[in-house]
Amino acid sequence: MSSPSSKATAAGGGLIVKSSLIDPDGGSLVELVVPASERESRRLEAAKLPTANMSAIDLQWVHVISEGWASPLRGFMREQEYLHSLHFNSLRLEDGSVVNMSLPIVLDIDDREKEAIGTSSDVGLVGPDGDLVGVLRKVEIYKHNKEERIARTWGTTAPGLPYVEEVITPAGDWLIGGDLEVFEPVKYNDGLDHYRLSPKELRKEFDLRQADAVFAFQLRNPVHNGHALLMNDTRRRLLEMGFKNPILLLHPLGGFTKADDVPLAVRMEQHSKVLVDGVLDPETTIVSIFPSPMHYAGPTEVQWHAKARINAGANFYIVGRDPAGMGHPTEKKDLYDPDHGKKVLSMAPGLEKLNILPFRVAAYDTLEKKMAFFDPSRAKDFLFISGTKMRTYARSGENPPDGFMCPRGWKVLVKYYESLQAEETNSSPKPVTA
Amino acid sequence: MSSPSSKATAAGGGLIVKSSLIDPDGGSLVELVVPASERESRRLEAAKLPTANMSAIDLQWVHVISEGWASPLRGFMREQEYLHSLHFNSLRLEDGSVVNMSLPIVLDIDDREKEAIGTSSDVGLVGPDGDLVGVLRKVEIYKHNKEERIARTWGTTAPGLPYVEEVITPAGDWLIGGDLEVFEPVKYNDGLDHYRLSPKELRKEFDLRQADAVFAFQLRNPVHNGHALLMNDTRRRLLEMGFKNPILLLHPLGGFTKADDVPLAVRMEQHSKVLVDGVLDPETTIVSIFPSPMHYAGPTEVQWHAKARINAGANFYIVGRDPAGMGHPTEKKDLYDPDHGKKVLSMAPGLEKLNILPFRVAAYDTLEKKMAFFDPSRAKDFLFISGTKMRTYARSGENPPDGFMCPRGWKVLVKYYESLQAEETNSSPKPVTA
Repeated sequence: MSSPSSKATAAGGGLIVKSSLIDPDGGSLVELVVPASERESRRLEAAKLPTANMSAIDLQWVHVISEGWASPLRGFMREQEYLHSLHFNSLRLEDGSVVNMSLPIVLDIDDREKEAIGTSSDVGLVGPDGDLVGVLRKVEIYKHNKEERIARTWGTTAPGLPYVEEVITPAGDWLIGGDLEVFEPVKYNDGLDHYRLSPKELRKEFDLRQADAVFAFQLRNPVHNGHALLMNDTRRRLLEMGFKNPILLLHPLGGFTKADDVPLAVRMEQHSKVLVDGVLDPETTIVSIFPSPMHYAGPTEVQWHAKARINAGANFYIVGRDPAGMGHPTEKKDLYDPDHGKKVLSMAPGLEKLNILPFRVAAYDTLEKKMAFFDPSRAKDFLFISGTKMRTYARSGENPPDGFMCPRGWKVLVKYYESLQAEETNSSPKPVTA
Repeated sequence: MSSPSSKATAAGGGLIVKSSLIDPDGGSLVELVVPASERESRRLEAAKLPTANMSAIDLQWVHVISEGWASPLRGFMREQEYLHSLHFNSLRLEDGSVVNMSLPIVLDIDDREKEAIGTSSDVGLVGPDGDLVGVLRKVEIYKHNKEERIARTWGTTAPGLPYVEEVITPAGDWLIGGDLEVFEPVKYNDGLDHYRLSPKELRKEFDLRQADAVFAFQLRNPVHNGHALLMNDTRRRLLEMGFKNPILLLHPLGGFTKADDVPLAVRMEQHSKVLVDGVLDPETTIVSIFPSPMHYAGPTEVQWHAKARINAGANFYIVGRDPAGMGHPTEKKDLYDPDHGKKVLSMAPGLEKLNILPFRVAAYDTLEKKMAFFDPSRAKDFLFISGTKMRTYARSGENPPDGFMCPRGWKVLVKYYESLQAEETNSSPKPVTA
């Protein structure tokens, strides 16, 4: 797994995407958790079914599906949905309307599981701890062509793609789709569950705060002042557009990330300091965790990131340079053209009603000693601080230039890198099922 | 380049696709050949422009674009169209409507050409013989990410894909898009130009014959009696549906094909014998050449094959097993799931109005001694004769089972394989420009 190289920060070259598609599924989000009164009977029934084993990352997807982030998807994809997603990045509903669905959300099984399932219509889902967490109903089993899935999703089959190595290469040769039922809301017991608001809970929170605009910011890195500039400038522009109470959804990704990304717990602590230090206004900001695993699939994945936040009630979506991108795993270059993410997002089926506001690139202004929008007339005064560079500063204990990040936020990072032992740190939180 | 292995003939498991989209571009096909009166002045003007060199296959694409097969596309793709095609297999028009466009139709240039073009808005197009054949106007130059293009188009990056090896690997690192103008209709002077009817000419022919339904059959192989069964049965069904005069467009692909496919001239001779032998009815059949190069990109390419024929006035499209498929170039299996072609076609954006009639698989009935629809209740009586098997018969001079192909058609194939020398035969006809 290579580290992203010579990449400017995510704050660069952003755009805002606007949507009026608050209710993509006719106003009702798919939620697939069994009512408490029926749990016991469903568990008893499910105990008799053949089963499919799930990894921690599969369970993260169960979390995602069960709360309606992927609504109108009602479970792991059957072949029709899989092909639609793989070839067209979308699903077509029975009424002919098209919704965006750029990533295949699928569950694999191996030959042994397939044989045990036989012709059973329903299958019990067993979590990584051995607990029965739900049922997949009216299942369909079809071939898992890994090579084609990887090529069409990532636009490369080069070895070293983090999600591929972690999830797809070790996966079974079959996919199983069906309607999902989950016995209980998925929890992680890692001290961060209070950050994990479902789309429904987020919508309630936006109503409570009387938001008339919600702008979401997806990230998987610490917040530096370039990000903050972008978010605060978005708010300013929304106010200028006539909105009275725009609310920022600061929405770090909480599922699987690659080993050299900063772990979720550290990022959440860092984000909280950014609010304490007043870089972002706590009055108009909601910090919550987006439970999806990360694919690092660039222009294909950014559509998923936008679509899921629209499901949660966001109507503006901020996109930076090279969203969901990384370094090419085997060559010294970015895997994706850094501009393709926003271009592809702007043409994505099912997201047609999004409006786009272009951003200038943010960089460190060495004269003003702060992150600022890049001014090409005095290019030499600006410093692009890449993610790699930021990690190098933090690892070495060296301070970045003044004004790059709020001091308390920076301290969190330094502490984390000091604590890092030689062993690899698993950055993916593990959902618990008991 | 590997030969396709253990593949049943294209007649198996077909379906018919019906369309009412006769006029995908608001009734007017894009045609991009300069009127004769203006040719001289345009040539003189173009002689002053910087140029891009084209291969014989590039010129096949010029042919395709200039006659409106890819309408509403007006030239080689600019980046917006390229990304739309690559990610979503479609283009979105200014009025918001979506048309199918599953293959990127692009022209590459190298660093030297890019530098010579500089900021010129217009570029002369030079054919493989060194002649100026047209102009690309309001050009846009963008990066040619070959790996991503290959992965997203074929669903694999395995070495040995014929179109990749022939066209993409040797191509330049840039793509150039723009509006196409061609000075004269593209001709090949190979004795087959009378078969190369443009979409406009085909429509006229259908009108002349007073067709009330046109069903197209795409192929790149000799016609055997399984194909014929499928075509004749389609006609029968159309008559049953109430059509009075269904016309068959037997539409062999005439552009680049892989080295072990039967060359176009041999196929055309074979097709003519099939009509002489009365296997297909000349009264209700039009044989014409489809000028597109072949990608062998399975479910992605079959959409292009259907879309182009709809542009030519066909309203029913017949799809067999594994359309546009081939053997995996490095593994002993089909590159694509043989059922994915028809499934993906049935969900393709821009082709929503197509209706599908499922076909049973055709195979050789050893009891009846003819090609027939497979009857699973007496499976042991049926013989699946793959393309590879057919070639083996013809190469060895051995006759296939009686009733597999009409005798005169078979003779053409045997003669061809006898004539084959040790050297590779180039099966791609070369358009001429002078």
